[in-house]
Formats: sequence, C-alpha cells, structure tokens
Amino acid sequence: MNNFTFCNPTQLIFGEGQIACLSKNIPVGAKIMMTYGGGSIKSNGVYDQVIQALKGFDYIEFSGIEPNPHYETLMKAVEIARQEKVDFLLAVGGGSVIDGTKFIASAIHFESDPWNFMLNDTLLAGKSSVAIGTVLTLPATGSEMNCGAVVTREQTKEKMAFHDPANYPRFSILDPKVCFSLPKRQIANGIADTFCHTLEQYLTYPANALVQDRFCEGILLTLKEIAPKILANSQDYDLCANFMFSATMGLNGMISMGLPQDWATHMIGHELTALYGLDHGVTLSIIGPALMQVMRKEKQAKLLQFGERVFGISATQLPSEEERIDRTISALRNFYESLGIKTRLTEYGIGMENFQLIADRFTQRGWNLGESQSVTPDKVLEILKAAL
Amino acid sequence: MNNFTFCNPTQLIFGEGQIACLSKNIPVGAKIMMTYGGGSIKSNGVYDQVIQALKGFDYIEFSGIEPNPHYETLMKAVEIARQEKVDFLLAVGGGSVIDGTKFIASAIHFESDPWNFMLNDTLLAGKSSVAIGTVLTLPATGSEMNCGAVVTREQTKEKMAFHDPANYPRFSILDPKVCFSLPKRQIANGIADTFCHTLEQYLTYPANALVQDRFCEGILLTLKEIAPKILANSQDYDLCANFMFSATMGLNGMISMGLPQDWATHMIGHELTALYGLDHGVTLSIIGPALMQVMRKEKQAKLLQFGERVFGISATQLPSEEERIDRTISALRNFYESLGIKTRLTEYGIGMENFQLIADRFTQRGWNLGESQSVTPDKVLEILKAAL
Repeated sequence: MNNFTFCNPTQLIFGEGQIACLSKNIPVGAKIMMTYGGGSIKSNGVYDQVIQALKGFDYIEFSGIEPNPHYETLMKAVEIARQEKVDFLLAVGGGSVIDGTKFIASAIHFESDPWNFMLNDTLLAGKSSVAIGTVLTLPATGSEMNCGAVVTREQTKEKMAFHDPANYPRFSILDPKVCFSLPKRQIANGIADTFCHTLEQYLTYPANALVQDRFCEGILLTLKEIAPKILANSQDYDLCANFMFSATMGLNGMISMGLPQDWATHMIGHELTALYGLDHGVTLSIIGPALMQVMRKEKQAKLLQFGERVFGISATQLPSEEERIDRTISALRNFYESLGIKTRLTEYGIGMENFQLIADRFTQRGWNLGESQSVTPDKVLEILKAAL
Repeated sequence: MNNFTFCNPTQLIFGEGQIACLSKNIPVGAKIMMTYGGGSIKSNGVYDQVIQALKGFDYIEFSGIEPNPHYETLMKAVEIARQEKVDFLLAVGGGSVIDGTKFIASAIHFESDPWNFMLNDTLLAGKSSVAIGTVLTLPATGSEMNCGAVVTREQTKEKMAFHDPANYPRFSILDPKVCFSLPKRQIANGIADTFCHTLEQYLTYPANALVQDRFCEGILLTLKEIAPKILANSQDYDLCANFMFSATMGLNGMISMGLPQDWATHMIGHELTALYGLDHGVTLSIIGPALMQVMRKEKQAKLLQFGERVFGISATQLPSEEERIDRTISALRNFYESLGIKTRLTEYGIGMENFQLIADRFTQRGWNLGESQSVTPDKVLEILKAAL
C-alpha cells in the first residue's frame, strides 16, 4: 500500500426530501449565486424545491452552464460574482454545473487570467476559494464530493482538469428522486462514467491494498447488477439510490487511498469531447477497452483479478491467462454496449484525422500518462487506433 | 437505503515514516497535552519519534491512561488541562488512549460533572471541545477516525459510550510499523474488534444498500484473508498496513451510510468488561455468535448473505437455509477461535452470576438494543445463556 493523506470534509446529505435541508446548511447572511444549466431543473421540480428552500436568503441566479462547461461562459459568471460580491456558490445540477462552479469559486479571487490555473493548478496553492454547496441532479462525475473539475476552452477546443483542495463542497444534497426524470442516455453515461472512474483507480498494478480493491470491486459489481434494471425502470427509488451512491463513492477518494491511479482513459477521452463533442461517458467507453488491450501486459495481474471478481472469469474455467484477459476486455466492452453506448470510434464517424493532433498535444504538455507514466504519446496513438 | 447525513473531517495520514509529519499538523502556538498509556510507546520507539516531532512546541505529558480508560484517571487529566489552559490534545496510543482523550476534550469546558454527558451525550450539543490529533499505535477501535468514545467508571463498574461530533480528530497518523511490536493477543483482539464492528453495521436486515454491503464484505474478506498470516508474522509491512486500514475503515462511518445498525453485541460486551475485566475484543467474540444464534430469525437474510459472500457457504452446496445459518454461525465462531480467542463464557470461569444484573441495568437504562430495538433485556438474558 502506498503512503497517502486523505481528507474529505464534504457533508453528504442523502435521501428523499433532503433538498428542504438546504436552508439549514447555507451560512446565514451569505450573498449567494445559484448556478445551473439549461433549465432541466425547471421541468423536473428541483428548481422549485431549491427556490422554496432559499426563501429569505439573498441570492442571484446564473444559468446556462453547458455540458462540458465552457471557460467563456464561466468567465461571465466570475465577472458578475465579483461585481455582486458573491460569497457562496450554490451549484444545482450535474457534474458540468458543479465543475463549472468550482472554476468560478477558484477564479473569483484569482488575480491573473484563470486559464493559468487550468494549465497549472499549483498556482492555486494557499489561495482562497469561495464556498460551494451543491444539489446534485445527475449522478456521474462524483464532483459533488471531490475537489476536482474539468473545464473546456471553446476557442481552442481544449478540455482540461484542475484540482483545488479549497473546492470540496461544504455540503452536497443527493435526492435519488432526481433520477426519475433523467433520459436513458444520461443514466447510461452516468453508469459508464462511474464504472470508468472506478477502473482508473483500480485497474493498474497490484499494490497490496486489499480493502481498497474490494471497495472498488463493490462498486463495479453493484453497477453491473443494477445497470440493466435501472435502464429498464428509472422510477425505482432503491435502484436510483444505489446508482447515485455508487457515483459519489466512485470518485471521492475513499476507494483509492494508497492505490496507484491511471486516468489515461480520461485524458484521451477529454480530447475526443473537446474535438468532436462526444459525451464524456461515451469517450470513456470507447477508449477504456482499447487502452486495456494496448496496456494488457502492464495491467495483466489486475485484469485477471478484475475478470475473476467482477465478471466471474476464473482460472478453473479458463486456464490460459491471455484468453482470460481477452474475455475480460470483451466483457468490459459488452458492459458498455449493454448500456446502449457504441464503443468504436468509427461508429461515430470518427477516423484517424486528429490522432496525430492529440498525440502532439500530449507531447507539447509533456504528458506521459497512466499509473507508470508509460502511456506515452506513441502509446496514445496505438490506443486511438485500437479504438477505431 | 435509509436517508443519512455523513461528514467525516478527519485527515488520515497513513504510511511508514508519517509520524514525522506531526509538526506540520499541530497548530502553531498551541498549548499541547500529550496523552498516552502505560509506556509501551517508550519501548517501541513511538514516544521518541513523537518527542522529536514536538521539538519547539509547548507541551505537557499525561500518561497512565489504562485499557478501558477510567473516568477517575481521566478527570485528573481534565483538572491539569484546565489549570494549564491546554488547547490541543495529542493522543498517542490505541483506542483506549484516544477514547480517553476524547472524554478529556469534551470535559474541559463542560460545566457540571462530565459523567452527566456519558449518560446523555445530547448535553454536549453546541458545546465546544478541545481539538485532538492522534498517533495510532494499535489498530482496533477506529477511534482515530470517528467521534465516539467509551469510558469506564471504576467505582460503579459501568462502561458507557458517548459521541461528540466535535471530537473527530483533526488528524490521525497511522504508521503500520507500530504493529511490528504488538503482542499477538493485541493483534487478535484488534482483528476481532474490527470484524465485529463491521458486523454490527452489516448483519442486520437487507436495506437495499448494495455498495455498502460490498464495502462491509470487503473488510470482512480482507480480515479473513490476512488474519492467519499476520498472526504468524506481524513483521510484514503490507499485512500490517491492510490490518490497520481495515480497522480504521471498519468504524469511520463510511461503510454504514444509509444502513441500519445493531451494536447490541458491543453493549452486552461492555458489561462483561466492566464486571470481569475481559478484553473488549474477547467480549465481542463471546457475545457475537451467541447473539446471531438468538436473533437468527430477524437476521436471516443477512446471515445467508454473510455466509455466502464471506465464508462461501452457498445455496447450491447446501439447500437448507437453516443449515446454512448454522454453518455460518459456526464459521464466525471458528474465525474468532482461529485468532486464539475462546468464545464461551465458561472458558473464562464465568457463569450466570451476573446475568440478571446486566439485564436489570438495561431495564433501568430503558435500553432495547439492536437494529429493530428487539434485543430486550429478556433477549439479553437469552444471549448470555447461549454464550455460556
């Protein structure tokens, strides 16, 4: 097990009817900016519940934060928040709204162009951030209980992640009933996203972190169990609760204490979203199996463990390790496809036209990805080809 | 899944050599009281490492906190802490030292007799507590990452638990190397304690909390896997790290979000420690299997799940549910006995002499225990008889 430091101060408020607790958790006297997206919260009743809970508070609204939130949009919110002296941000939405709100929180008191901290988040060390609370409406990214965020610069088609330890939400309210109105595509993406988040932390090399491996496998097994049921019926409270809980646990740091981590699938996937506008969960479903194929030697031990414990592909049934790995990668691909997500670039009309551009970006950024920094730009090219 | 609120702000600092980080984590200018037990930290090198890290800080020492820390001892520390205007408590020890230190923290600013909050911890609501940091030397209780504590009143032979949300340690330093010098008995007790903590949160009734169940099973499976190895060789860093990590995860609230909880085994076990001085882990190993036997109808579904997922007792091999439950309870008893812990009261020379006293105490306190409050004083008598 690797040495680690873990601290996650977010208060999780989970369950039906919990949005009403909002008023007890926002600091009295705060100047609030409520942030949200395209207005789905207005049709599913969440907006009304939040407005009800905000009665008596001093708040302004900032709407229009798009999926894969844009730097350009968020800078407008930063400008308004500065003018209005906002000192509490209430994000009501999914990962994009929460991520965007984290950017706003870090940017408000940042002196130079905030894109600078997107390129180098160590610039944020010791800086203050505006406090955030969230009401989650779409389980997927885990952003409601971590300090990371991903922002896209529309102008340059770049999608970048940053972390600011000051950005753990003070509280996050998770009412599983918000899932009842989600389109199937968003549920599928959320499941794929959570599955991949877990794999990024789990599927590396053995680190003798036995409990953490079991925690990861617990999320993977649960997603495998509930995925077909919730896609068939998203009006089942318990299914939604398990989905929502899985997504939060999948990326709040708890399952990865002392584990090496990968994240190459995400970094390559971000490029596909930035260049082609593919949904985040879709990019992970395309790149994930291709990366496993290309990195199968380095990941051999964990691929075998994953296959056995999550998909039941055991040595007694299939003695050849190579065949078990083949079977495991197929099972992973089949899982994503069972969600209704196509897992080949060509199925989205994407060819090799931008592969070199992506590899060159990684070269320029000096990025060697993966748990052992062995996913070099050359390997990225291989992975992209394997994803065709 | 039940509604829940979860927040655990403790910073976990885990790994070899991390005690040196102490100085970076104690507030500058604090008046520190370092608390510890009988002096084993002086023979295993932990004391020296702590003193080295405390160079330049203003601290006093309070030693002699005994196993199952005594109210009478702790009140002496409270008196000194008040006189010396202590504003930071550094607990260096196992669960007893940390629990005792939590009592001191809550008692320092408490106006009336602190035993009052032991009897009714709602008296602590809104009161301030003195900040705590810990250096853990014995994995078992999870006290290093929760806000609960158990204190014994020697005069009346009462052992009581209390919770104060202000008592989450600010940080806890866990260096697995401290296990290298632990006697086998303490390792066995720590494993039994962690196993039972997990069962108290897991083995109730199905609550449709799929991930949480898997998390619990992950700890149980890990303990089952490492127990024989670490008892044979407590000098293996990875085994010690997995043991230590399991103990902390077993009782920091993470595995039990949204789950019903039992804790009857603990409440009955506390009486045995208070009356007979039995080790805490021993009492849990005695009462646990007896309670499962008496409550087997109510716990039926979870007993079957526990048997299958942790001990591999499956329906395909053994169709009768009653037989599977018998087999599961035997497996639990065998597990505790494999640690070298005897699981029958009679093996400790204990008969029925105090059973009625224990039941009467629960009657007086108005306690109906367990996840459904169905462990009445009458059931407690049954459980004690089944433990003979």
